[in-house]
Amino acid sequence: MSKETQEGITVKKEENFSEWYTQIIQKADLADYSKVKGCMVIKPNAYFIWEQIQDYFNKRLKLLKVRNAYFPLFIPESFFQKEAEHAQGFKPEVAWIEKEEEGERLAVRPTSETVIYDSYSKWIRSHRDLPLRINQWANIVRWETKATRLFIRTREFLWQEGHCVYETEEECDKEAVQFLNEYKKLCEDLLAIPVITGKKSEKEKFAGAYYTLSIESIMPDGRALQMGTSHNLAQNFSKSFNIKFLDQSGKEKLPWQNSWGISTRLIGALAMFHGDDKGLVLPPKVAFSKIVIIPILFKETEEKVLKKAKEIENKLKKYNPILDDRNYSPGWKFNEWELKGTPIRLEIGPKEIDKKQVVLVRRDNNKKEFVKISSITKKIEESLEDMQKNMLEKARKEMQSKVVKVSSFAEFQKAIKGKKAVLVPWCGLRKCEEEIREKSDGAKSINMPFDQPKDLKEKCFNCNDMSLGLWYFAKSY
Amino acid sequence: MSKETQEGITVKKEENFSEWYTQIIQKADLADYSKVKGCMVIKPNAYFIWEQIQDYFNKRLKLLKVRNAYFPLFIPESFFQKEAEHAQGFKPEVAWIEKEEEGERLAVRPTSETVIYDSYSKWIRSHRDLPLRINQWANIVRWETKATRLFIRTREFLWQEGHCVYETEEECDKEAVQFLNEYKKLCEDLLAIPVITGKKSEKEKFAGAYYTLSIESIMPDGRALQMGTSHNLAQNFSKSFNIKFLDQSGKEKLPWQNSWGISTRLIGALAMFHGDDKGLVLPPKVAFSKIVIIPILFKETEEKVLKKAKEIENKLKKYNPILDDRNYSPGWKFNEWELKGTPIRLEIGPKEIDKKQVVLVRRDNNKKEFVKISSITKKIEESLEDMQKNMLEKARKEMQSKVVKVSSFAEFQKAIKGKKAVLVPWCGLRKCEEEIREKSDGAKSINMPFDQPKDLKEKCFNCNDMSLGLWYFAKSY
Repeated sequence: MSKETQEGITVKKEENFSEWYTQIIQKADLADYSKVKGCMVIKPNAYFIWEQIQDYFNKRLKLLKVRNAYFPLFIPESFFQKEAEHAQGFKPEVAWIEKEEEGERLAVRPTSETVIYDSYSKWIRSHRDLPLRINQWANIVRWETKATRLFIRTREFLWQEGHCVYETEEECDKEAVQFLNEYKKLCEDLLAIPVITGKKSEKEKFAGAYYTLSIESIMPDGRALQMGTSHNLAQNFSKSFNIKFLDQSGKEKLPWQNSWGISTRLIGALAMFHGDDKGLVLPPKVAFSKIVIIPILFKETEEKVLKKAKEIENKLKKYNPILDDRNYSPGWKFNEWELKGTPIRLEIGPKEIDKKQVVLVRRDNNKKEFVKISSITKKIEESLEDMQKNMLEKARKEMQSKVVKVSSFAEFQKAIKGKKAVLVPWCGLRKCEEEIREKSDGAKSINMPFDQPKDLKEKCFNCNDMSLGLWYFAKSY
Repeated sequence: MSKETQEGITVKKEENFSEWYTQIIQKADLADYSKVKGCMVIKPNAYFIWEQIQDYFNKRLKLLKVRNAYFPLFIPESFFQKEAEHAQGFKPEVAWIEKEEEGERLAVRPTSETVIYDSYSKWIRSHRDLPLRINQWANIVRWETKATRLFIRTREFLWQEGHCVYETEEECDKEAVQFLNEYKKLCEDLLAIPVITGKKSEKEKFAGAYYTLSIESIMPDGRALQMGTSHNLAQNFSKSFNIKFLDQSGKEKLPWQNSWGISTRLIGALAMFHGDDKGLVLPPKVAFSKIVIIPILFKETEEKVLKKAKEIENKLKKYNPILDDRNYSPGWKFNEWELKGTPIRLEIGPKEIDKKQVVLVRRDNNKKEFVKISSITKKIEESLEDMQKNMLEKARKEMQSKVVKVSSFAEFQKAIKGKKAVLVPWCGLRKCEEEIREKSDGAKSINMPFDQPKDLKEKCFNCNDMSLGLWYFAKSY
């Protein structure tokens, strides 16, 4: 038997979340650092998750009459400058290339509003061209100066960005909310990640937007993670990019626009939520191999057991099972696949063969069951389904346990120091937010959730002005 | 009725192929130029074709045990320099970014061998890690100095690149051929494009490769288009990137590698082959909307006809039909959808309703048929299938008509001047190729097809040395 050393996660999730996260991403073969600082290699296990996100979302996009397209990686400097707030917001993060075009610098896209809307200004002429709904899947570069973290903040990442154009404010508004709700559905259905939908504050909205909606989660360490945004851009960009259309009566008008995106950051959120001290736990829907089969081998019965294990492997082909017949001990293999997050482990040895059964162990709750081989497909289907559901419920409870409702600044301060997120009545004003940020050692507004109490009478917890509603505040990624 | 002007293709394919191509790509809404010279916008109609290529190929990759991953866009300069030929070959085309990492310049990837093999050198330890088969779908930047042409030669394009590592030369060789054959299958089955599979000459092989295989087609203007390549890299990169593995007996060895790619160039080839003077013709398998329904409207029967047209639209949902009920004349609409390449047109007016039928017109051969509404789904299925097959046959015949078998340099010269590709006995030597290129005003070797006559005795048509076999030569894109 080989004696290669095996190293699991060496820190506890509760004790050192940050180090635990770094280890789990690398040891579960999700991603690796690259020689270029802040850039990552997305390994097959994680890229498969991204493909599941793409498949899921592309199906929804088709129903919503959004079509995919692809726009250039490079953006001329003059495009950026057309929308002043946008230019200002992205300036520090842009990577420029050395080549110039007609004396102009070219940026590697940090987001594509400007290059896409330059095309839209040529394509849109009449109300018949609207609504125009286009999405692209692309790589994005933001030259972060903050410390990077795999999936959560890297200088290059993958995302989708949707860019729609409408005749009226009403349609634009309605669909900005609709796309955000699609993100929520995706996170919950596919990734088993609970999210909060709401509106960002003036200070935290997208550079150039009228307003920004977001999906957010509170991670197990009490910090918030923004996982997707949907911006109503009003007519800000149609004005600066000269996008105009003739309405039904022949009048020239400026259209309304929204843009919305989710990224590979979701994979980081998934690992944060579902991992434990033994390793990753993959929601069944995004696991490439949903099952690992471990034969329990003894000299005399080895042949018989391997034969049966192969039969089971063939029977379960649609789950991309791994038959781990390598020359390691069963315990070594258990650890390995727990680290990688494989949803279901099947163990089969001579005793099991005699009883025409296998041992089934679920990764999410570690429960062990004996299952008759004759009914194995049905049992696996049920277990995977139950596991997917169970993981979302568990994550939701965990998230709720990290949030405290408070009313005063003192309570706020105490909660943030105790690594909690807070829900608090707040005025929403930029000046007040800046003050809070300084006083509270970095907590910022997350969003004002759509879901609000009916008759909130509390004043702003900080400035005692009128409150807009309850807001989430937290330290954030 | 609206009187918007409509402009089809204004030149004939036979008379001015280059201008015809430029018009068809833009007027059929496949792509558009961007403000950044040489970069393109891939519009939804073309991006859909790319997605069909991805879907088709991803399914094949899964069967061949290749997994998808994603590597960084940026490559440190020192990586390039590790493999000397590779560095030399790509040097003129690299776009560098202004940011530096530890004093090193960063390139925007022109291909990813170097950045991927740096990771492989960390991942591969033992024979148990091999074969390693990874593919990525990515954008690529090559700062072309030649004139650009939408899809055929742009500074940024989309592609897939596969990168495999093997214990032995034998496996590496076998799979390099296998992946090329997969490309052939994809081109023929999905895009109805006939291709020639063969080996590139020493002069034309990939920078850093041991040998390069390619799929090529001869376009209607007699010029060759390289559409995909598969390189056996031997141990050239494993040597320079220090990729080593311990074999079964515990000895340290250098593995063998291959890499292979196809790009959005395939979309250009599709348009070149299948377009005609009226516009694009889309192979049914890659058409987003496979059917357009044109109601023939008169005042008295308008309501009845529209109602029936909608019924048919609903019945044919799975083909993403377009019901064109806009306020234009039927003839205007016919032209529009012929320009866009929609495979099947259905016409329905009051006469057709009385006879419970529709008129079905195929885009590839312009044939008109009356079809009973009751059997319409079956008929459409058959027509689409037949059309797909017919397009490949037609393209194959056209390609064959562009090739002449010659034996002497005089015949070669005459054929190239007459806008043909040639098949000719040749020695394969670099020096001889350089000489031919100068003398023949730019014709170069395309490949030596796998399919060779059994007992070729002819000498090299240029230097009269021993010939390696019959080779294709042509002017090329």
